[in-house]
Amino acid sequence: MLTFKDINEAHHRIKPFIHNTPILTSTSLNQMIGSQLYFKCENFQKTGSFKIRGAINAVSQLSKSQLERGIVTSSSGNHGAAISMAGNKFKSKVKVVMPNNTPNIKIDNVKRNNGEIIWCEPNQISRDKILKSVLDETNGVLVHPYNDERVMAGQGTIAKELLKNIPELDVVIAPVSGGGLLSGIISTVKAINKKIKVFGAEPLEADDTYRSLIAGEIQSNETTNTICDGLRAQIGTLTFPIISRSVDGIITVREKEIISALKMIMETMKIIVEPSCSITLAAILKRKDIFCGKKVGLILTGGNIDMLSLGNLFDINNG
Amino acid sequence: MLTFKDINEAHHRIKPFIHNTPILTSTSLNQMIGSQLYFKCENFQKTGSFKIRGAINAVSQLSKSQLERGIVTSSSGNHGAAISMAGNKFKSKVKVVMPNNTPNIKIDNVKRNNGEIIWCEPNQISRDKILKSVLDETNGVLVHPYNDERVMAGQGTIAKELLKNIPELDVVIAPVSGGGLLSGIISTVKAINKKIKVFGAEPLEADDTYRSLIAGEIQSNETTNTICDGLRAQIGTLTFPIISRSVDGIITVREKEIISALKMIMETMKIIVEPSCSITLAAILKRKDIFCGKKVGLILTGGNIDMLSLGNLFDINNG
Repeated sequence: MLTFKDINEAHHRIKPFIHNTPILTSTSLNQMIGSQLYFKCENFQKTGSFKIRGAINAVSQLSKSQLERGIVTSSSGNHGAAISMAGNKFKSKVKVVMPNNTPNIKIDNVKRNNGEIIWCEPNQISRDKILKSVLDETNGVLVHPYNDERVMAGQGTIAKELLKNIPELDVVIAPVSGGGLLSGIISTVKAINKKIKVFGAEPLEADDTYRSLIAGEIQSNETTNTICDGLRAQIGTLTFPIISRSVDGIITVREKEIISALKMIMETMKIIVEPSCSITLAAILKRKDIFCGKKVGLILTGGNIDMLSLGNLFDINNG
Repeated sequence: MLTFKDINEAHHRIKPFIHNTPILTSTSLNQMIGSQLYFKCENFQKTGSFKIRGAINAVSQLSKSQLERGIVTSSSGNHGAAISMAGNKFKSKVKVVMPNNTPNIKIDNVKRNNGEIIWCEPNQISRDKILKSVLDETNGVLVHPYNDERVMAGQGTIAKELLKNIPELDVVIAPVSGGGLLSGIISTVKAINKKIKVFGAEPLEADDTYRSLIAGEIQSNETTNTICDGLRAQIGTLTFPIISRSVDGIITVREKEIISALKMIMETMKIIVEPSCSITLAAILKRKDIFCGKKVGLILTGGNIDMLSLGNLFDINNG
């Protein structure tokens, strides 16, 4: 069971390896939206995403013999790059099972950090099946991208830094996919100040968490046809109970809204983020009833987006 | 004659209206390039570019009767938006003569700040002619985009902030177009520490400053066929003498090199900048003999780039 103590210990463990990323604000966006927004910029984090937090926290706890066996994981890209970097630092070889429709920038990011990529089809069944076969073949150690308390604890450290700087927040919102980030954030925020609400933002096209909460048990994604390549995984057995017990709501968002928020962040704030985190701003724009007049912390999870894809993306949105 | 006192006074005058923008570094880029790079991020400045510094410094010194007459300027976009914002703050109407090929984001930026746009052809002769006719018709007050000591002093304040934070720099590099920025930077840097070298970066496709220095007098641009929409103006009669006396060199850069550096900054640093300032990184990559092993301050002048254009830009570069 993930505790606040785990998160504090994780933070102590990973601090030498990560950036305490900046928290940005935008007067223009605040005026436009009517909330006070605080963007925790994990797009500036090592490897270009927050995933290095969970990765370092997990890998740094492996024994010498485990490190020698090598690490195996599955990933939509960012966790793979993070585990690869962590593997480099702790001298362990890394194999990453990745969907064959992963953006080039995320593929390059794994390779640059000496990770070995093993391709799977872009669905949960193929991902799980190939991950299992690689584990069986190599006798490697699994560091799951989200269904692992060491990983969840690492991701929770983002909220520690955010609340240390902006303790007066009313709400925190983070994207949800497998739930490693959101469960870590919830565990941290609610331990520090129960009054702060925590929301998850999820693509309507991959809305398993939203439906799982309604059903009271884990549901599979019916589609994963979303531009948010980091949000196509299925909620985990360890993350779901935490989210289900303590989240204040999951807000589902349409593709067009995600792209529009992406453009808004890039044009106004002059920073590069992934659609997988512009979804949080899209959720805020959609649910003014929740966020208007509030101090809102948004987790900008990563900035690994193919520049080549941007023109098409925004063109389609305008059309 | 622009003095360091002018720049200090300008800084005092404009401080309440501007951001002291962050100075970013990138371990990856430093490793890749072999220099220690310090990016002064004016892309995060009010209106998305450094131009607000000179604009506020000039407009805040206008008399009440001048403000009532209204302000007229010409601009490739960023100065126009900056003067429009300054006009708003000091209650003066603003007319901006702008080339008809200005990127949409810069047009919107002027309009959002209540500036009135008057179109000209994208060349210096049309720009000057229409500017003169608007001045004659309206009896407005000219705040020239660069050939104005108040503007030059405002732009120089960037180097004050940069050197206050990183006094140990070996070199500073800034783009050069009309020379308002570069002359301000030179005047500041050389006043603070004569040993620090100052270079200008200029597109080969609009290399009037480079050729003017060789000729010993101002030369016109033969072409302005550059992706750097902010660097198509001609060096000014007030800026040229300062640059000609004290610059340590002008480095001309090809279009492909500018685009490649743009991609490098965006992908590695996750920030949005204009080609008109990625040119500084391109110059560093081109002239390792000057910059290798050195501590280099780069002025990232702005971030107003049409997102829609990015796909095409990078595609052409790869092709």
